[in-house]
Amino acid sequence: MNKIYLDYAASTPIRKEVLQEMRRFEQVFANPSSVHSAGVYAREVLEDARGRVREILGVNSEDKIIFTSGGTESINLALLGFARANKHRGKHIITSEIEHKAVLETCKQLEREGFIVEYVGVDEKGMVDVDEIVQKVRKDTILVSVQYVNNEIGVVQPIVEIGKLLNIKKIAFHVDACQAGLLDLNANRLGVDLMTLNSSKVYGPHGAGLLYVREGISIAPIMFGGGQEYGLRSGTENVVGIVGFSLALLLLQKDHKKEWMRLSGLRRTFVKELLKNIKDVIVVSDLKQSVPTILSVGFRGVEAETVVRALSALRVYISAGSACTAQQIEVSHVLSAMRVDSDVARGVVRFSFGRGTALGDLRRVVVCVKKVVESLRKV
Amino acid sequence: MNKIYLDYAASTPIRKEVLQEMRRFEQVFANPSSVHSAGVYAREVLEDARGRVREILGVNSEDKIIFTSGGTESINLALLGFARANKHRGKHIITSEIEHKAVLETCKQLEREGFIVEYVGVDEKGMVDVDEIVQKVRKDTILVSVQYVNNEIGVVQPIVEIGKLLNIKKIAFHVDACQAGLLDLNANRLGVDLMTLNSSKVYGPHGAGLLYVREGISIAPIMFGGGQEYGLRSGTENVVGIVGFSLALLLLQKDHKKEWMRLSGLRRTFVKELLKNIKDVIVVSDLKQSVPTILSVGFRGVEAETVVRALSALRVYISAGSACTAQQIEVSHVLSAMRVDSDVARGVVRFSFGRGTALGDLRRVVVCVKKVVESLRKV
Repeated sequence: MNKIYLDYAASTPIRKEVLQEMRRFEQVFANPSSVHSAGVYAREVLEDARGRVREILGVNSEDKIIFTSGGTESINLALLGFARANKHRGKHIITSEIEHKAVLETCKQLEREGFIVEYVGVDEKGMVDVDEIVQKVRKDTILVSVQYVNNEIGVVQPIVEIGKLLNIKKIAFHVDACQAGLLDLNANRLGVDLMTLNSSKVYGPHGAGLLYVREGISIAPIMFGGGQEYGLRSGTENVVGIVGFSLALLLLQKDHKKEWMRLSGLRRTFVKELLKNIKDVIVVSDLKQSVPTILSVGFRGVEAETVVRALSALRVYISAGSACTAQQIEVSHVLSAMRVDSDVARGVVRFSFGRGTALGDLRRVVVCVKKVVESLRKV
Repeated sequence: MNKIYLDYAASTPIRKEVLQEMRRFEQVFANPSSVHSAGVYAREVLEDARGRVREILGVNSEDKIIFTSGGTESINLALLGFARANKHRGKHIITSEIEHKAVLETCKQLEREGFIVEYVGVDEKGMVDVDEIVQKVRKDTILVSVQYVNNEIGVVQPIVEIGKLLNIKKIAFHVDACQAGLLDLNANRLGVDLMTLNSSKVYGPHGAGLLYVREGISIAPIMFGGGQEYGLRSGTENVVGIVGFSLALLLLQKDHKKEWMRLSGLRRTFVKELLKNIKDVIVVSDLKQSVPTILSVGFRGVEAETVVRALSALRVYISAGSACTAQQIEVSHVLSAMRVDSDVARGVVRFSFGRGTALGDLRRVVVCVKKVVESLRKV
């Protein structure tokens, strides 16, 4: 039986065209800071990749695209970097209760450094309340960080609306867009000042990410050394990884609407089949307000991790809670914030879909899930 | 005419066996934190790589091998991480004047955070004075950081001797071993508590590095999130990059003595030929006290950067100063610390050798250098 990978929100395979591009450039190993021709060429390749990203985000050369080692580093650079560089202006930061751990744990660090972080709640769909953000804004609020798409339930937040409000109040706005590869990433249309993207969620290689920084926004580095990346991210650049990342992002954005439609259809069918074939299924993701790549579903009376393991034995790979939390499965903070019954929350799993997902696979998955859930319920 | 790359200290090409190994694992894209079999397998591959590194460094499973994005990040994690976690014990740190910028700039950051950093000088060979370290030690000294091998002149520091002294005084010892791939890396024999290695200097892929942390040594993370890598380096692990890095290190260490002998012979011949054919050549590297991979040489009456560019036009790639400093060529702090005449220092270039370096190439390089230096002197 073929493996069916439905954990694209945890990590995507590298796209074939991206692997080919990376092979084409694998001999580009010189240090982009070297003065000789091999170094100059490596620098050109790097800057071409940066230009490619600029076009995707629709930004100009005064805005910064800082390449990092991944989403976590970008988020840390955005939050720690902005807060530390702007603490003279205020120490108040607002984020949501359902952010990724990279945001929440970095905010805890900021609290240890004397910043005040306030967390806005979400409704039953997982949507943040824009009015609550407005209410929480103080004179000393310097930064708001909101996820574009939640990694567990897929809910899409009203980024444009929040961006407009914060822009009026001149409060900086960071958006964690790691799960938003199928959405509009135009930084100006979104109205964001800082935006994080991650290669390993958009069919690029692991070990690459980026932080977009709007012109005029100051951040401090979190790593020090040779002064690469505008003096804001020292360390020899991972040129080949960056090339792969930039191409992966370009290709995904190119047909993002088509892929969105395709996966929307698949997800709808999948949900219908689950509801038809299995009893006591709770669809946690709001299908109208979430990306079609993510589906959070609860099965009453079973433990999520047991379901994941049993499905894995049937070669179906899904996730319980967020997979980005090193081997720990806790009761999800996202489901808690949404006030999902703990009875249901215990049995919530995440199916996440991607380019390799086909209808036939999903039909087999329904059969497997039915088998697993029903036999676990009998125990 | 073939390109002759003599800039191995800036960046090494990826070894063929390493590329092959990385291709073998390129389908291992799952998140090592995922619970399903694909995640478990990715975790196994990652832990195998960690085990491989443990064997190379001769350390046991109580010691930590933290994989990072590269040398700069590892150094930052070592210095910022150790200092911040141990500031209750003291705020005094000692390092040398000729460290890599990643150490020096991170030390500047520590000074901004209230730490006191003292810098020991070096003699005319670039050797740090062990007695001066001892003299500078105070009751509140918590950390000493010394480079194993200097990246500009190749001088090897007396790590074992320093390690013994610091061990008695219970002061933590960090060693930047990025340029020490051909030397003994056994952490116990060296007596180090923290040690940094970088993939892109040992024929591995860019974007990977590691920090060795001895059992009992506390460090604080510099990035926050999912709690990967012992809770000390959050962010999804770059498994394929780490596999490539660990294999590259293994292969280099396997025949390091043989390669050391080979390159020593080549370097000796190269120096002899330079001295024989060109006037006013100053050999800055002490041939007995430096690694055979690096040769620092001054040509009186010429500008280093001009030499580098002129040689590049002849397809010979070398370096002026440290290439790791994003496109800036300053008068080298290493040469200043060694009190090299500024007249000579201006014309100092670095030839760095590696696995692809052959005698025939070096003979051609001598001819090119002679041509370039003599014509520049005429101008």
